[in-house]
Amino acid sequence: MKVLLGSGGFRTDARKATLVAEMRAHFGEIDSILFVPYALADHDGYVAALNDRGLHAGYTLQGIHQTSDPVAAVRSAQGIYVGGGNTFRLIKQLHELGLVEAIQNRILADGIPYLGVSAGTNVACPTMRTTNDMPIVQPPSFDALGLVPFQVNAHYHPGGIHYDQDGELHPHYGETRDDRIREFHEENSAPVVGLFEGGLLRCDGSSVEVVGSAARVFQPGTTPTDHQDGEDLMRLLRD
Amino acid sequence: MKVLLGSGGFRTDARKATLVAEMRAHFGEIDSILFVPYALADHDGYVAALNDRGLHAGYTLQGIHQTSDPVAAVRSAQGIYVGGGNTFRLIKQLHELGLVEAIQNRILADGIPYLGVSAGTNVACPTMRTTNDMPIVQPPSFDALGLVPFQVNAHYHPGGIHYDQDGELHPHYGETRDDRIREFHEENSAPVVGLFEGGLLRCDGSSVEVVGSAARVFQPGTTPTDHQDGEDLMRLLRD
Repeated sequence: MKVLLGSGGFRTDARKATLVAEMRAHFGEIDSILFVPYALADHDGYVAALNDRGLHAGYTLQGIHQTSDPVAAVRSAQGIYVGGGNTFRLIKQLHELGLVEAIQNRILADGIPYLGVSAGTNVACPTMRTTNDMPIVQPPSFDALGLVPFQVNAHYHPGGIHYDQDGELHPHYGETRDDRIREFHEENSAPVVGLFEGGLLRCDGSSVEVVGSAARVFQPGTTPTDHQDGEDLMRLLRD
Repeated sequence: MKVLLGSGGFRTDARKATLVAEMRAHFGEIDSILFVPYALADHDGYVAALNDRGLHAGYTLQGIHQTSDPVAAVRSAQGIYVGGGNTFRLIKQLHELGLVEAIQNRILADGIPYLGVSAGTNVACPTMRTTNDMPIVQPPSFDALGLVPFQVNAHYHPGGIHYDQDGELHPHYGETRDDRIREFHEENSAPVVGLFEGGLLRCDGSSVEVVGSAARVFQPGTTPTDHQDGEDLMRLLRD
């Protein structure tokens, strides 16, 4: 099993370079990656933007929206990359197009590599219940691909937030991310990895390595633990 | 129709005083308000905290969770207050306990006063699709009470955010609130009021007055407009 899960926030040159290097190592010597842009409204624009920003990592990104049969496209893909945007919109499309089982089969049975970024990371988890996104559409189910047995909170950050208005920073009193994950654990038991922006989790079935940023692991009823670039989280996240 | 919708963030003394004064004017000379704490896990703790912080505004808060028949409690209530927490958890309970129609009848047909704060504001809208909360449970529907014909984004803030780690502020690259509301309008057409923390909307069927903070109004495909304390938004939000 080869699953690479990115948090998002790949905006600085150093972060982009990390993502591209990880993509090269992950996908290896294939030519074309099947790209799933359903989390954004503008599918063609998404593919173009990744190419413009060099985030194709040298691969040809084949937009699944441009294929006549998305399920067949998954069945013949050499690698799959699910991009970011709105997780509710993405999961609704995956369910409605019959892609959940098709992707599970390719990744878990056939062993082709999967890359998710942001919303694409959320849908690799057992459910989409740790997304930060707004529920702009109602999917038939919150169940997701379950490629890994734990949840990820993408774009994770600790502490309270301040917002920028006219160049000044003002305190905001909404729930912190840790508050939200604690609420998740009032209703669910799966461990949650809070993955800082710029980071990835490299998952091969026997290890879950943190790459490029820090991560915080939340288990129900215990104090979260902090982890750094290079650490293997597998023992914490086992079923 | 008497509906008062608070954003949340009533943490400073000035904001608390505004909320209490608005509650007194809104509920008037009744003794007891039916309080709906389902957005939080600890129902008794929520009622106790409001009483401790003086946010009962002098009324007896009767927790709906302490009644043997919640629908009957709504039918006999003199006023209803729905508190904050997680909107997914709240709406799931409202649907499963048969409270959606019961509350609609009391507010829209019988004209008793409704107060919502944060999640309680989200559920007063046509749908819960503009909540900021994490989808920790899956409700049977995103449809909400529809007491007002527009959406509210509670805890609204403009601009990008910075998070506090060890006393230093770091930039965060996740979607801004405006990005999220723009995505909402890619899929939906209802106007959205971004209501800053500490603010309320006083709705009586012929006006929607901003009280205690600023607000930003978003319509599909147009530039948002900014509004101040005391302005009436009705003409912008008409069906």
